[in-house]
Amino acid sequence: MALILPRDLCRTLLRTRNLCNAGIRGRHEDRTVHRLLQGLQAGQRASLAEAITLVETSHPLKKQQAGHLLTRVLQDANDQYSEKGPQALSFRIGLSGPPGAGKSTYIENFGKFLTSQGHKVAVLAVDPSSATTGGSLLGDKTRMPELSRDDDAYIRPSPSRGHLGGVTRSTNEAIMLCEAAGYDTVIVETIGVGQSEFSVVDMVDMFALIIPPGGGDELQGLKRGIMEMSDLVVVNKSDGDLVPAARRMQYEYISALKFIRPKSKHWKTPVKRISSLTQEGIPELWELMQEFRHTMEESGEFVERRKTQRRAWLWTHLKDNLVSAFVGTPGMRERIREAETRAMEGVVSPGDAADQLLLLHITQLQKAA
Amino acid sequence: MALILPRDLCRTLLRTRNLCNAGIRGRHEDRTVHRLLQGLQAGQRASLAEAITLVETSHPLKKQQAGHLLTRVLQDANDQYSEKGPQALSFRIGLSGPPGAGKSTYIENFGKFLTSQGHKVAVLAVDPSSATTGGSLLGDKTRMPELSRDDDAYIRPSPSRGHLGGVTRSTNEAIMLCEAAGYDTVIVETIGVGQSEFSVVDMVDMFALIIPPGGGDELQGLKRGIMEMSDLVVVNKSDGDLVPAARRMQYEYISALKFIRPKSKHWKTPVKRISSLTQEGIPELWELMQEFRHTMEESGEFVERRKTQRRAWLWTHLKDNLVSAFVGTPGMRERIREAETRAMEGVVSPGDAADQLLLLHITQLQKAA
Repeated sequence: MALILPRDLCRTLLRTRNLCNAGIRGRHEDRTVHRLLQGLQAGQRASLAEAITLVETSHPLKKQQAGHLLTRVLQDANDQYSEKGPQALSFRIGLSGPPGAGKSTYIENFGKFLTSQGHKVAVLAVDPSSATTGGSLLGDKTRMPELSRDDDAYIRPSPSRGHLGGVTRSTNEAIMLCEAAGYDTVIVETIGVGQSEFSVVDMVDMFALIIPPGGGDELQGLKRGIMEMSDLVVVNKSDGDLVPAARRMQYEYISALKFIRPKSKHWKTPVKRISSLTQEGIPELWELMQEFRHTMEESGEFVERRKTQRRAWLWTHLKDNLVSAFVGTPGMRERIREAETRAMEGVVSPGDAADQLLLLHITQLQKAA
Repeated sequence: MALILPRDLCRTLLRTRNLCNAGIRGRHEDRTVHRLLQGLQAGQRASLAEAITLVETSHPLKKQQAGHLLTRVLQDANDQYSEKGPQALSFRIGLSGPPGAGKSTYIENFGKFLTSQGHKVAVLAVDPSSATTGGSLLGDKTRMPELSRDDDAYIRPSPSRGHLGGVTRSTNEAIMLCEAAGYDTVIVETIGVGQSEFSVVDMVDMFALIIPPGGGDELQGLKRGIMEMSDLVVVNKSDGDLVPAARRMQYEYISALKFIRPKSKHWKTPVKRISSLTQEGIPELWELMQEFRHTMEESGEFVERRKTQRRAWLWTHLKDNLVSAFVGTPGMRERIREAETRAMEGVVSPGDAADQLLLLHITQLQKAA
């Protein structure tokens, strides 16, 4: 019994990424990779922007270059880590919150505060919805006008292509590139709704939820389980008339968090009030974030989380690739739709429908032999 | 470019289930299938028990029989549904809660109440931990002594083999068999911790969370996002000295639920107090459950949810099968471990590690050609 994989399937498998050339050390570098690497090491923004565009591309030759570049970047990062330990690592902060929470104003102010303290800050956005709207380059510059003019800040608009898997993969790689260019604080912001929070939480060292002081109805939009993922809850807009409402919200979140199993046994998720308008609470919030990092480093959880995240990402990519190779088999999409219909109508059990699809796959391959 | 799938891979693919014989209508039935089918239609417990054991097996020939049996059961269920509409469908109720919530006593009393009202009640347990401990047959009979002697109740201990995917697949199929044997109410209980609640919620029409009136610390054990999945929250043990604590708990849950996006736009998750000891609140709880079912049926969501669940299960099985076929390739386990280590140590990016594994897979297949 021997099965032949048809040419199309091979191509699908290979197309998922340029497999042959990814991540092998010590290979001859082409000029682009060399130039970008030098640019990154010199902290040049233009090189960073070009490098991120490179990892976002789906062009086969450029994907090959992106693979080389990332391997070198990882090598350098590892050398630095071996030398200096966890201190060599940047601080990756995830930010999420419902529309109207004042995320942009917060990042603008928080980012300016950080650069004034001598930090270099990169802001990346994960926005799966932009796959259809075509990105939001202009939007990003408009909503953080001061930070985008700051020499020590780099704001990257969200990538404008691909499904969530693709977008999150390139965001993950963009984080590494920002770090290579010397940005010690990387803020990953989620825009839009849906699953993006769940991807971001697996990319960052600390995940913060930002909420407005508004009433209960606005919060109905909160994504499932988002409180459980948060290392910190920030009640924004705690200024003027809104202070009592912000206090109430703070109290309610503290009480709601009691019902949730702590994400880390070394850290109890705090709920803090701040005002992006008056800057009140922003320095204290940064102190709290540093305390979190210190606690995580001391317990070893900081490095452990990063390792666990990398393994989780490996499996996400692997499963995605296997499924896309399967779905990409000629004629399979139609068969899947048929199987879905039959399972949904209850004509076959879901398990049998899945088995039949796999059998069909094998039969097709046999015929192709 | 033609790739040969080696014999081992074929066998792995085929072994994931007996593919060739699953779910095709009108095929010649063997004697066992015929006998079980007749037993189920006559509502015989012994046949039900044997049928469930059959779908839990991993023996190839028996899997084939299980496939035939399920196809026939589905056919009959569809005929009944075409004739009578949603009323022909059973009521599948999921129950979950932390240890100490009094789940067993509740199911014992609730089950007895239902059989006294003329219902036939099946109780199934999902317990992934029993894969290692070897099941809990005795435990199930001991913890619900009266219900297990009731002629109108069928208590099935949790399956004692396999990983979560396998356990949940057979639970899904056991539900269908219970329905075929005339059980109009199927209670699916989660035992143990971890991911089991998330599987159960996709198997049932209504998901209820049961909690004890105890203090905050005990509830730290609540699984992530479980509140968001609940159609109903039951505060148990609201009797004697515990009434004030139960009231407090009820209030706190009502307030915590305000922060959660409703699971259905037609239903607001209620929080009710009951006592399994004094039976107080149990008839009212059943009325509430029926009201839920009525609301869901009226809105069409009842049938829609079942369809969506079946599609979700198809994809779960499909992905599981693809991954096990991949992992089952000769030598792959070791390579995966290596890739995981390299990704965790940061030597390669997770994306590249995944790509390299796929490439290796293809290369292996080419060599086998």
